[in-house]
Amino acid sequence: MNYINNEKVEDLKIAYIGGGSRGWAWELMADLALDDQLSGSVYLYDIDFDAAMANEIIGNKLKDRSDVVGKWDYKASKTLQEALTGADFIVISILPGTFDEMASDVHTPEKYGIYQAVGDTVGPGGIVRAMRTVPMYVEIAEAIKAFAPKAWVINYTNPMTVCTRTLYKVFPEVKAFGCCHEVFGDQNLMREMLEDMEGIKVEHRNEIRTNVLGVNHFTWFDKMSYKGIDLFPMFKEFVDKYSETGYEQKETEADDLGDYFRSGRRVGFDLYKRYGIFAASGDRHVSEFMPPWYLKDPETVEAWGFALTPVSWRKHWREVLIDKSNKLVAGETEFELKSSGEEGVLQMKAVLGLGHMVTNLNIPNKGQIPNLPWDAVVETNAVIERDLVSPVYAGNLPNNVNALVLKHVMTQEMIVEAGMTKNLNLAFNAFTNDNLVAIDIKDAEKLFAEMTNNTKAYLDGWGI
Amino acid sequence: MNYINNEKVEDLKIAYIGGGSRGWAWELMADLALDDQLSGSVYLYDIDFDAAMANEIIGNKLKDRSDVVGKWDYKASKTLQEALTGADFIVISILPGTFDEMASDVHTPEKYGIYQAVGDTVGPGGIVRAMRTVPMYVEIAEAIKAFAPKAWVINYTNPMTVCTRTLYKVFPEVKAFGCCHEVFGDQNLMREMLEDMEGIKVEHRNEIRTNVLGVNHFTWFDKMSYKGIDLFPMFKEFVDKYSETGYEQKETEADDLGDYFRSGRRVGFDLYKRYGIFAASGDRHVSEFMPPWYLKDPETVEAWGFALTPVSWRKHWREVLIDKSNKLVAGETEFELKSSGEEGVLQMKAVLGLGHMVTNLNIPNKGQIPNLPWDAVVETNAVIERDLVSPVYAGNLPNNVNALVLKHVMTQEMIVEAGMTKNLNLAFNAFTNDNLVAIDIKDAEKLFAEMTNNTKAYLDGWGI
Amino acid sequence: MNYINNEKVEDLKIAYIGGGSRGWAWELMADLALDDQLSGSVYLYDIDFDAAMANEIIGNKLKDRSDVVGKWDYKASKTLQEALTGADFIVISILPGTFDEMASDVHTPEKYGIYQAVGDTVGPGGIVRAMRTVPMYVEIAEAIKAFAPKAWVINYTNPMTVCTRTLYKVFPEVKAFGCCHEVFGDQNLMREMLEDMEGIKVEHRNEIRTNVLGVNHFTWFDKMSYKGIDLFPMFKEFVDKYSETGYEQKETEADDLGDYFRSGRRVGFDLYKRYGIFAASGDRHVSEFMPPWYLKDPETVEAWGFALTPVSWRKHWREVLIDKSNKLVAGETEFELKSSGEEGVLQMKAVLGLGHMVTNLNIPNKGQIPNLPWDAVVETNAVIERDLVSPVYAGNLPNNVNALVLKHVMTQEMIVEAGMTKNLNLAFNAFTNDNLVAIDIKDAEKLFAEMTNNTKAYLDGWGI
Amino acid sequence: MNYINNEKVEDLKIAYIGGGSRGWAWELMADLALDDQLSGSVYLYDIDFDAAMANEIIGNKLKDRSDVVGKWDYKASKTLQEALTGADFIVISILPGTFDEMASDVHTPEKYGIYQAVGDTVGPGGIVRAMRTVPMYVEIAEAIKAFAPKAWVINYTNPMTVCTRTLYKVFPEVKAFGCCHEVFGDQNLMREMLEDMEGIKVEHRNEIRTNVLGVNHFTWFDKMSYKGIDLFPMFKEFVDKYSETGYEQKETEADDLGDYFRSGRRVGFDLYKRYGIFAASGDRHVSEFMPPWYLKDPETVEAWGFALTPVSWRKHWREVLIDKSNKLVAGETEFELKSSGEEGVLQMKAVLGLGHMVTNLNIPNKGQIPNLPWDAVVETNAVIERDLVSPVYAGNLPNNVNALVLKHVMTQEMIVEAGMTKNLNLAFNAFTNDNLVAIDIKDAEKLFAEMTNNTKAYLDGWGI
Repeated sequence: MNYINNEKVEDLKIAYIGGGSRGWAWELMADLALDDQLSGSVYLYDIDFDAAMANEIIGNKLKDRSDVVGKWDYKASKTLQEALTGADFIVISILPGTFDEMASDVHTPEKYGIYQAVGDTVGPGGIVRAMRTVPMYVEIAEAIKAFAPKAWVINYTNPMTVCTRTLYKVFPEVKAFGCCHEVFGDQNLMREMLEDMEGIKVEHRNEIRTNVLGVNHFTWFDKMSYKGIDLFPMFKEFVDKYSETGYEQKETEADDLGDYFRSGRRVGFDLYKRYGIFAASGDRHVSEFMPPWYLKDPETVEAWGFALTPVSWRKHWREVLIDKSNKLVAGETEFELKSSGEEGVLQMKAVLGLGHMVTNLNIPNKGQIPNLPWDAVVETNAVIERDLVSPVYAGNLPNNVNALVLKHVMTQEMIVEAGMTKNLNLAFNAFTNDNLVAIDIKDAEKLFAEMTNNTKAYLDGWGI
Repeated sequence: MNYINNEKVEDLKIAYIGGGSRGWAWELMADLALDDQLSGSVYLYDIDFDAAMANEIIGNKLKDRSDVVGKWDYKASKTLQEALTGADFIVISILPGTFDEMASDVHTPEKYGIYQAVGDTVGPGGIVRAMRTVPMYVEIAEAIKAFAPKAWVINYTNPMTVCTRTLYKVFPEVKAFGCCHEVFGDQNLMREMLEDMEGIKVEHRNEIRTNVLGVNHFTWFDKMSYKGIDLFPMFKEFVDKYSETGYEQKETEADDLGDYFRSGRRVGFDLYKRYGIFAASGDRHVSEFMPPWYLKDPETVEAWGFALTPVSWRKHWREVLIDKSNKLVAGETEFELKSSGEEGVLQMKAVLGLGHMVTNLNIPNKGQIPNLPWDAVVETNAVIERDLVSPVYAGNLPNNVNALVLKHVMTQEMIVEAGMTKNLNLAFNAFTNDNLVAIDIKDAEKLFAEMTNNTKAYLDGWGI
Repeated sequence: MNYINNEKVEDLKIAYIGGGSRGWAWELMADLALDDQLSGSVYLYDIDFDAAMANEIIGNKLKDRSDVVGKWDYKASKTLQEALTGADFIVISILPGTFDEMASDVHTPEKYGIYQAVGDTVGPGGIVRAMRTVPMYVEIAEAIKAFAPKAWVINYTNPMTVCTRTLYKVFPEVKAFGCCHEVFGDQNLMREMLEDMEGIKVEHRNEIRTNVLGVNHFTWFDKMSYKGIDLFPMFKEFVDKYSETGYEQKETEADDLGDYFRSGRRVGFDLYKRYGIFAASGDRHVSEFMPPWYLKDPETVEAWGFALTPVSWRKHWREVLIDKSNKLVAGETEFELKSSGEEGVLQMKAVLGLGHMVTNLNIPNKGQIPNLPWDAVVETNAVIERDLVSPVYAGNLPNNVNALVLKHVMTQEMIVEAGMTKNLNLAFNAFTNDNLVAIDIKDAEKLFAEMTNNTKAYLDGWGI
Repeated sequence: MNYINNEKVEDLKIAYIGGGSRGWAWELMADLALDDQLSGSVYLYDIDFDAAMANEIIGNKLKDRSDVVGKWDYKASKTLQEALTGADFIVISILPGTFDEMASDVHTPEKYGIYQAVGDTVGPGGIVRAMRTVPMYVEIAEAIKAFAPKAWVINYTNPMTVCTRTLYKVFPEVKAFGCCHEVFGDQNLMREMLEDMEGIKVEHRNEIRTNVLGVNHFTWFDKMSYKGIDLFPMFKEFVDKYSETGYEQKETEADDLGDYFRSGRRVGFDLYKRYGIFAASGDRHVSEFMPPWYLKDPETVEAWGFALTPVSWRKHWREVLIDKSNKLVAGETEFELKSSGEEGVLQMKAVLGLGHMVTNLNIPNKGQIPNLPWDAVVETNAVIERDLVSPVYAGNLPNNVNALVLKHVMTQEMIVEAGMTKNLNLAFNAFTNDNLVAIDIKDAEKLFAEMTNNTKAYLDGWGI
């Protein structure tokens, strides 16, 4: 890379693992195109090489457009080595296995009365997904160590915590952090609250200042403010107002993705009333971390005002996107230039020294949450400066919430270790430690056997 | 107190809180009578003053007997202040509430399908019992601080961890430790194993050397040896031999107390196979710490070869003991002089400088188990020297076991804090964090309301 | 206080302890006058009430001036209680004792061949100053606890670390931080370096991003950057260029204060060559933390290109300022409205929620420097948000530098404890632990006796 | 090895690195010969093969003697690999370099006014000795890892802390501990005190119970008792009685080794008066850890009642021992069978499961002293059981003593790191951090250059 007057950087190389992605990849393309300080190449690596090729074509069309200020070359790579060598940044967003695997993760447990809204983080689905993912991340971490040890790595893949932790366990010097937009959604919820309750319009969610602590998808705010206002007293009233009806957020994923993604935040409101601080992720995620209070059965989910996302919908949506991709490749439609609302490009700029920032990231615990285990991956605020990410001290979780969080941290530590050593027994220990696996031990054994059998194509070496 | 030639101590004062006890108190009487190095007075304080009076009479009969070498005066005290002032040792073994309270603790949850074998440590019964007990221990700790701040305190009351933790939270300088014989039983099991498997006769359980780690009634051995023999390989075979049939221990509580106390250790064997180290407490206790795998219903308990102890039996046994007490007071029967097998008197002697010892105790975590929270009360080995108890480094629990233990540590931390502040909401957070409360949240609320209502006479100030 | 449209705050109350100050107080007046978002009252408390009265008059003249946009009422307070009650902020900048005491601190050791450039932080002077100061801060901390427990406290008094630590030890819930501009000077040095070496003009020192770690006046940078530039390679060349001649900074204290404050940074450059990271305070301070390598005698000091500041100069300068004060009170001269370059007002605004900031502060170690003791006061970056100061993880000091820093941390921990308990023996342990007290133990005893005797008017209760 | 009836072990293999030793090796021979539970082979490895051969002959003569109950074969080994392969225990006692090197370590600093009583642990001599020793221990640790990874390693070489730390840094799974008899001497001092002050005869030093904390040769007792007696009040009187005259211990090294080893403990008494706890090593060692208060010059040493040990004496003594060895080999004199008073054989038996013990050892800090750095090698009590050494919690050092100890811990951490990476600059940082190097930095540079030059034959790869 090459700095121009300390204001712009050209010749950057970004390696995108999972570069055939039609979600995160397109958002990154848009954000890069809209930023005039950075330029260079994006190497797209994907086990589905055709998908990467399609994105190469889509991406390369952008640089000729007059409304594009950030000029980038896109190139599909056949090998990780080619993509990684010389990279300044590495972005990882992969699907570990196919949607058929995910269908098993999410829906097999339903036979035993276990329902999951997402099924990619915790719950039986999250655990088995982790069993597939950890060995993939071992491979990725070793490739980073070999080919791009000084690159900064941004992870978007779920299970976020488990993926990021694996990178660090395999290659402790890795410069990696995990990013997730769930917290942004809650900052937006606070914006809407300010307008709803007090008529105050807040321009950007990052004016909502929060102390973030927990693990990804189960992060909590114990402090929230807007300028001089402590938002907790207002939030208490807001919860009283909407805890029965739910509050429908104006801008949400559900707008784009439909009813299967809706969340009236009644679970979050209920947890606030029970535990005293705010669980800052959508109900679909948060409910999976709790005992099956909110996910007992589809009727209970319905009653709490959120939705289970069937994998059939994901398959359908995939078709929609493939169709869209084909049209973009063919030039039948034009790529929409719209800021994604994600922070990836801003984070890269901060790492490059072009403006420091404070934001929430998933990184190893260096004491930022003293009562969670050292080195476990946690989500808190961090300061990003040139070539440096420093966690901000978030403080202890209160004991009642920590009891909830620690349980998952322990499961995550187990499943990472199990994945690295392909220890099936330890994986089952992790499986039975999950809150949603609240079934008889014999049933748990059967379910685990069935789920791992369904995905055994991706569990080579586990002895299945 | 007064040392004679550095070999004997006379004029010791022991305060016994719960001094009307017909179990631990009689065992202490016997052990004191059989030891020729100590003499002095035992002050018996009990809210049932008549019971203390009976023990005064029983105890004082001993000193005239020719077979008694340890001469002690017994005195029932009307006030804690009188009992504690000037005490060198304080022994606490109380029943927090009556057996009617305990009947509610143990049996009310059965309506919701929750079965407990003991119900005094964890489980809904243990939690509600803790709600009664913590405020009593706050009072005791304050009295110790006021009247006997330098005395050594030995706790026998359950829930052991919660009681000991409360003493330290209220009065951090307290010199207290909690003692329990569950580990002794497992050392005896190893003795029997050596004879059963190899024909080796071991004289005393303390020749079985173990590394102890965990919390009371959920302690684990990760190292066990007899002289040069690593006992784990032998234990693996022993488990293979008996995991289906169970192993009936020769000397157990069940001999004295009957069938309701039996345990074939099949739960312990199953946990060893699942988790790789040995859960060193009887199955009745250990099963309560796990999800309802072993306590699903009475049939499951039966199938695993252990027993639920109904409180009706405790009430019956109490009658037996009252009758025995009456006869002892009346001189109709003679007090049986038999070593209890407990270590209380040996521990006192070690504290007095008459022989140091290494044994397992419940004390605050000063890093002896690095991956449990600092200051939580844990059970490990400790060295007892003159006026000094020093924990021995036990090392980390393996992650899979630590996931099991940490959950209870968090519950215990919550219930102590709840009890000290009479915070009903936090107590309910603790209640729902228990593994046996694997029921719907609405049912949990109902059960909690019913249980706390049943014992509300002992829950003054909680807002019930 | 009162927010207007979430953009301004009126009716703030600031208590200024040491409010007769003619240095920090005037700078605060100027900065408040130049800021249009805040207004309210400043209560000036000083044991020299006349000095506080003078500042009341000087301060109150400001609000009528048309070039003043921040309107404040100033009021001299006769009691700490009056000043503190209802305060939103408390600023502390006091002189502990008189300049006669300081003359003894700085110059008595010269009889034993010990030279100090400043004598207010470490060295025999710093230790004895701390002996006077800690009891004063005990009193202040108790007053804050009683009258303004929720106020934010900004400390400017030296010894900075010791003062801030005392506040927290006496009142652990205090919301206090210590501020010092030494680091700013080094950020400015880096600005000048960029121009000197590369012709790059940097507008403001806060564009120089640094990772700060250490204790006040002995803080280190292990990372420094300007936009995309890692400044360490350039600094290495800069040191090579100037390590013999010294580098004379363009804007320094020496401009205002004269030759006694000059520093060519040769000590800093030498330490960089020996230890590999940069000691980010002026040579006058840094040299005092080292063994007497740079302060062996006046010739050595001269040779290293910095200066000893005699207390006679401070007395002289005090006269200059009294004269200036009199003229300001009399209206003979007009108060100069000039930004001080200090961050106090910005920090207050950040605490009020008007813009968060990342800056270096002195606060208890919550793990931001893992290899310094927990709770010792350290200097690192921190994020200031509404009602919240959160340290940023700075990482470990390298062992060779940590050996230097830890020694002083231990001395500081001792002298705070000694001051709180008036333990003269422990104070002497601290005294002999100082690097500059490199004299025979008998001489050290004599020197300590003489120095404490000289200041015994301020050492009531120490048994001197 | 092979257990017989769980009471005896035959076919043990001990590897002795430095097996030509005429001190520790002969003591081990005697202790092994006097113990009837162990038998097997001792492999003697030494860079002086002839010395090892002499010990082979001397050792093998023993087994035919009727008064020898422990029968051992001795064999001089030409390679580390042969000695280590299959070893159950490894004993290390080497001289790093020759006495000529040691003469430089001890006496070169005298040119700069630096006197050392021993010069093998800290001080300029200890640092330079460590520079030679650490690379040797790197080699030994790698050989242990390769050839005997499960053997237990007992280190006797100085600098003890540095040697043991190096073993763990190179091979973290090593099962090593360092042993030193300095603490035994102080337990014996307490025995004599009891007789001197109270006429109490104590049979064995291990009846004196102590809490040990610190680093080797700078260990402290903060608790000492004999049966029911707290020894500190008596010690206070003892110090008052002897602080001026010194107390001449009845049985000491000086009996065997002469006047150069005498110590009246006046330094220890002085430190007790200054710091409040007892520095439990002889004055010759302890004085080296302090600033040059006690080692200012030979007159000061004389005045404090202890002695500097010249290396010429060591050379002389070596001749005496060689002569003795020759006679033993030739059969002109008979090996004297006398218990050494050391614990090596007892420790081996404890590791073998033949009786557990609590004793003081040098092992990595796992929190046994919370305010010293984790993993630094410290000396505290530990429990030795079958194949297990567990530190006993010793608690925090008081701040005033910790300031003294921590400084050396930091130096030791630096010199180990320097030795492992052959970083001369870091070694010099360690050198200047030593208390005795209280000289000008330019002189320190010269001294360091001279000392390292003198021993450069052993500093290959350091760039000297």
